[in-house]
Amino acid sequence: MDDFPLEMALREWTDLLGLEQVLTEKLSLEAAERGTFGTGHSIPAIVRPSSRQEVQDCLRIANRWKVPVYPISSGRNWGYGSRMPAASGCVLLDLGRMDRIVDFNEGLGYVTVEPGVTQAQLYAFLKDRDSKLWMDATGASPHCSLIGNAMERGFGHTPYGDHFAHSCGYEVVLPDGTVIETGFARYASAHAAPVYRWGVGPSLDGLFSQSNFGIVTRMTIWLMPEPEYFQAYYFRCEDAAGISAIVDALRPLRMNGTIRSACHIANDYKVLGGIEQYPWEATGGKTPLSAPVMAKLRQERKFGAWNGSGALYGTRAQVKEARRLLRAALKGSATRLQFLDDRRLRLASVFSKFYEWSSGWNLSRTLAILKPVYGLMKGIPTDRPLASTYWRKRTAPPTDMNPDRDRCGLLWCSPIAPNQGAHAGEIAALTTALVLRHGFEPMISMTMLTERTLSCIISIGYDLEIAGEDARAKACCEELLQRLRENGYHSYRLGIGTMSAMDDGGSYGQLLQDLKQTLDPNGILAPGRYISSPRKAAATAKA
Amino acid sequence: MDDFPLEMALREWTDLLGLEQVLTEKLSLEAAERGTFGTGHSIPAIVRPSSRQEVQDCLRIANRWKVPVYPISSGRNWGYGSRMPAASGCVLLDLGRMDRIVDFNEGLGYVTVEPGVTQAQLYAFLKDRDSKLWMDATGASPHCSLIGNAMERGFGHTPYGDHFAHSCGYEVVLPDGTVIETGFARYASAHAAPVYRWGVGPSLDGLFSQSNFGIVTRMTIWLMPEPEYFQAYYFRCEDAAGISAIVDALRPLRMNGTIRSACHIANDYKVLGGIEQYPWEATGGKTPLSAPVMAKLRQERKFGAWNGSGALYGTRAQVKEARRLLRAALKGSATRLQFLDDRRLRLASVFSKFYEWSSGWNLSRTLAILKPVYGLMKGIPTDRPLASTYWRKRTAPPTDMNPDRDRCGLLWCSPIAPNQGAHAGEIAALTTALVLRHGFEPMISMTMLTERTLSCIISIGYDLEIAGEDARAKACCEELLQRLRENGYHSYRLGIGTMSAMDDGGSYGQLLQDLKQTLDPNGILAPGRYISSPRKAAATAKA
Repeated sequence: MDDFPLEMALREWTDLLGLEQVLTEKLSLEAAERGTFGTGHSIPAIVRPSSRQEVQDCLRIANRWKVPVYPISSGRNWGYGSRMPAASGCVLLDLGRMDRIVDFNEGLGYVTVEPGVTQAQLYAFLKDRDSKLWMDATGASPHCSLIGNAMERGFGHTPYGDHFAHSCGYEVVLPDGTVIETGFARYASAHAAPVYRWGVGPSLDGLFSQSNFGIVTRMTIWLMPEPEYFQAYYFRCEDAAGISAIVDALRPLRMNGTIRSACHIANDYKVLGGIEQYPWEATGGKTPLSAPVMAKLRQERKFGAWNGSGALYGTRAQVKEARRLLRAALKGSATRLQFLDDRRLRLASVFSKFYEWSSGWNLSRTLAILKPVYGLMKGIPTDRPLASTYWRKRTAPPTDMNPDRDRCGLLWCSPIAPNQGAHAGEIAALTTALVLRHGFEPMISMTMLTERTLSCIISIGYDLEIAGEDARAKACCEELLQRLRENGYHSYRLGIGTMSAMDDGGSYGQLLQDLKQTLDPNGILAPGRYISSPRKAAATAKA
Repeated sequence: MDDFPLEMALREWTDLLGLEQVLTEKLSLEAAERGTFGTGHSIPAIVRPSSRQEVQDCLRIANRWKVPVYPISSGRNWGYGSRMPAASGCVLLDLGRMDRIVDFNEGLGYVTVEPGVTQAQLYAFLKDRDSKLWMDATGASPHCSLIGNAMERGFGHTPYGDHFAHSCGYEVVLPDGTVIETGFARYASAHAAPVYRWGVGPSLDGLFSQSNFGIVTRMTIWLMPEPEYFQAYYFRCEDAAGISAIVDALRPLRMNGTIRSACHIANDYKVLGGIEQYPWEATGGKTPLSAPVMAKLRQERKFGAWNGSGALYGTRAQVKEARRLLRAALKGSATRLQFLDDRRLRLASVFSKFYEWSSGWNLSRTLAILKPVYGLMKGIPTDRPLASTYWRKRTAPPTDMNPDRDRCGLLWCSPIAPNQGAHAGEIAALTTALVLRHGFEPMISMTMLTERTLSCIISIGYDLEIAGEDARAKACCEELLQRLRENGYHSYRLGIGTMSAMDDGGSYGQLLQDLKQTLDPNGILAPGRYISSPRKAAATAKA
């Protein structure tokens, strides 16, 4: 490969940003090349602009020398690619220094942020101001970028769980360095820019999510008002086949707005992975964790084959009525429906023994499972779920967890299904058999992301330090993706290694390529990210 | 103008569709050239395909001869352009024959329709099946196209009021005749195609709303489950300045989900226009209707300076709690808060005299105002609001109302503001003074379209048969649009005469033009519709 263009680009980036913001030493690059699965992709440099103007200038330099760049916000896209670019040879454009919260409105419930702003940062910002607004948080890590997650269409647990759907007014640097703002934000004077999504004329927000059409350098995120009363609910189902009945029981409540947030239902493997590492002793070191052993463990640890959680938000009377409806709906399909609020949680933590005696509910044991999820349902970021990336490691997760550095193996597969029991059952059965057959544990959660949608998240956890495991896990993930697709279940999000499977050669993929050719004729922005490289000339050439 | 390409195209369209589907006689064309304001645009022909394949073929012919076409669904975009194309010389592509309901799912709450399917048709379809699903309806007309309205981002009155936001899985014929399907619908097998909007990779739905990038020939529309209990609420405010306090009182309830649907607040002029024609006698034929005369009329007819309506949806207990919260919120800012449900409405209709005596509420008079809105809040299409287009006519609306044919003058102006009292007050004051000064009545409604958004709809009603009125009304509308823009209030939707005002010469407009050039290099699809004609070569030429 001819290094001259890269060298010239690096020289210009250095002139622009200063020596300390253009990293080329081996240690930094090797760290960035590591994710929770292997790619072999090399990263020749990391460039760190601190402003929109610098991002624009960086892209102009990239175009001048035709050197591809790959933007990351916090780079914590674990299980889908971490910081690793979708193609080898891309210079990382690290937006982490752009970490300003540029606007905030308590009455209208929104905040406007740059890509480096993390979940923890926004949470602290709201606390500092005694704000009565709640953010929505994913379980990924407090240090995840808000914009990064929204652009990947990630989700959390409150009524504002669909992050992309609760954002607007993007500032986007196009591949050629020009800047646009979406919705009404295109007009400098528009009061409605941070509150109304569609603007006037075509709405372009969707173009910039899961794509390589531009870099979002600013975004308004809507925040929910703190409810008068909050109550979490938990339930179980002892039978693996019971998921179907539960989904069908809950759908009407999700559809009619009684349940306003995602209800999250995790199987036994997923719950175990959330509270412990692989039971090496109980299994004598044998993998995978077989269904009978799993059944034994879940009986000991008191959780079900499926374990539901969600929350009710409103006035006391609204929550009371929702509780009544939830009880009625789950009668017969779920067991041990329990409700938890702040007062009960405080009491329980202090008097867990007494509580167990008076309620018959073994709370001290259960609290370990419930507490991190409880906080998430109130929009409190936590790094607790991150520990599950150490599932198959032989050593305990360290205090400063970093699955990339610690060679944790993780691949996600995230099919979407209609919110119906039959679909939930089919996905669970297919996944469980297939993943076990490949020698891994089928960790599954099913989330009622919207009224009509079940988002199934399957994680394949392994140890990257064991030779051959990466290839085995990828084979498992790829077969799973393919089998799910064949059965009509397509993923809502893809890892950098499987994005090419998105394009089925049809007219839709062709349109994406035509748009890519229009917006990024030199192909310098995140090549391979969701949109394949052009298979033929752009539409203009056809004419 | 050289007629040869048009003649050739007409010949090919005729070969394709048959003689009876290519209209060129004067009467049909003249009828189509008429809207609720004048354009002078000529329509050389009307072409009526009956299937997606025919739409594709029609567009290929249009490209071959470079003859521009302008698609309409039902053509009832009254006040924004009716059937009239945004540019002169476009052949109308009338999609009204494509009127199939192609999919329906009671459990998941959706219906998939073609562009010719009307509100009335869907309503009848649901009734026929004893469906427990409710559609959302606009007040425009039962014969409005569902797709047409959703693509214009129109709205109705139920929790599913934002039509564009409650649709997915578009089948789109691109200008060159190729077909794509959006979201997961791009994959033939995807179960989630009708339920999950974003799909995987960039989401393109927004590209096709308020644009000229493609023709939507199929769409899935979500339907809400019928609630256990429904109750409408109405309130008033006697003071024109009181709108601010009302908006601020209701915002918290809209933000926290207690009010799940749009709350609609109309001023006195709007209410009067909804129930009567211009009071020619009371004013001695003088226009506009002055504020003092308006005040007198509203006292006689018992409505307020502002008149709110909305509805509560849920179980009886949910509605009861919402009612309590609404009462508490409006205390001090609104008067005569009244609740109405099916039982009360039936009783009231039968025993209105007795009811008046027992409740003190003059129901018989009020019912005339309330009933059409009541039905709309349950998603029942009505043509009652259409009568208001005859406001300034000297004769009564006929049974078969048709504002285009009957030369009713109507221009809409629809600014969006943050859902805050100060903004509502500013828009109301500015609009009232400006419109009266131009000699028309300031008919204003403010709708809490989303948690954070106030959608203000201002209608300027006039009589197209009076010489000079069209020009005067347009001057009023243009000045109003401009003054609102200057004050930071941009419209969510534009009429074909004012679309060019959208482009402020910035990078956003340039991007739209680049996309147009990519998708429609011959510029044959709906030229001038929201996207201006290219001001320079496409991005690819820049590179």
